[in-house]
Amino acid sequence: MEIEVLEGIFDANEIIARENRALLDRLGVFMVNVMSSPGAGKTSMILRTLEDLEDEFSCAVIEGDIAGKVDSERIAERGVQAIQINTGGSCHLEAKQVNTALGRLDLEGADLVVVENVGNLVCPAEFRLGEDLKVMILSVAEGHDKPLKYPLMFSECHVLIVNKIDLIPYTDFDLELFKETVRKMNPSVEIFEVSCRTGEGIQDWTGRLKERVTGRGIDT
Amino acid sequence: MEIEVLEGIFDANEIIARENRALLDRLGVFMVNVMSSPGAGKTSMILRTLEDLEDEFSCAVIEGDIAGKVDSERIAERGVQAIQINTGGSCHLEAKQVNTALGRLDLEGADLVVVENVGNLVCPAEFRLGEDLKVMILSVAEGHDKPLKYPLMFSECHVLIVNKIDLIPYTDFDLELFKETVRKMNPSVEIFEVSCRTGEGIQDWTGRLKERVTGRGIDT
Repeated sequence: MEIEVLEGIFDANEIIARENRALLDRLGVFMVNVMSSPGAGKTSMILRTLEDLEDEFSCAVIEGDIAGKVDSERIAERGVQAIQINTGGSCHLEAKQVNTALGRLDLEGADLVVVENVGNLVCPAEFRLGEDLKVMILSVAEGHDKPLKYPLMFSECHVLIVNKIDLIPYTDFDLELFKETVRKMNPSVEIFEVSCRTGEGIQDWTGRLKERVTGRGIDT
Repeated sequence: MEIEVLEGIFDANEIIARENRALLDRLGVFMVNVMSSPGAGKTSMILRTLEDLEDEFSCAVIEGDIAGKVDSERIAERGVQAIQINTGGSCHLEAKQVNTALGRLDLEGADLVVVENVGNLVCPAEFRLGEDLKVMILSVAEGHDKPLKYPLMFSECHVLIVNKIDLIPYTDFDLELFKETVRKMNPSVEIFEVSCRTGEGIQDWTGRLKERVTGRGIDT
């Protein structure tokens, strides 16, 4: 037995996402939208990424959270420009919020803006922000069955980072089955296997991101 | 720097939640709303719970997912009445969907309805379904800092089940700090520490639930 409920498409968001895109193109800034469930490791991944990129590139971070500013404070401690968006209850970032945040950042000479979306595998996938790259992170502790339950996120992402691979021996996570399922839904997705805790695999991802930032303007 | 966005309150949902509540009271059925991030273990927890309760109580399950019906099929394999709600993209269940599902279940002589909400720590906390008990599950792999980032869910839940405690030795999860943070936000919350994988602690939770189902009508 199934009950279907349909939702509309958000044209207003799309218009502002295009404005963001045009602004970033004008400034020559590459923007990454990082999405995941709560606790999959977005902030840790961003901190690891900044560590590898900040010598070569000028970076800024937009932090999206329901409440609080712990994440933007952690980023700012590294000396990286960070702005916090508190959505006040909303479960995803919208292009308009990112537009306001971009306007408040000093992006002269900037190369990369990383946006940390609200921890949620559902709605963030529906709201384009004007990003070059949609990155989703899955923690292995979430299980290999998630693609079938959250199909839009897994279909829409350009990059999938499988995090906490150091936990695989202690879980039932089947990495090969997981990758096979994802690739059926999203054949062009680039998959990286990492542990933010141990550092394993991080440079595969950051190396690839460096290539993308350098070749900016090439849209995915 | 902060950007605030406010959301309204959903009166229509509240009216239907009350209808659900009245229907359940009339039937003498206890309803539990299970909420968590994707992959925290809602379905595993419900299966474990049914295992302990199904000899004594007549149970039914309402499964909420964006897409698919793997979960309701897993429940139905146990011989338990299960109905799948596919939200078609929406990130939470609403009282109206549960109302429709309740109408399709055979609840004559039923004792307990367990609702598995969509995997999301944000919006499900805002939509009352007419439940007796709001149960949230946190997997230790998500980290002990989650209460401050998803305050509504942690403040609203009556029961907090800390799952995957078998993974604690392999993570930085600080259980005491976590419980302290939660209790400051929600002094009356009942906390259970379990592992659905090993079975540890499950009976503490199911024992308590049995007491609640038997004493039904006592609202939390």
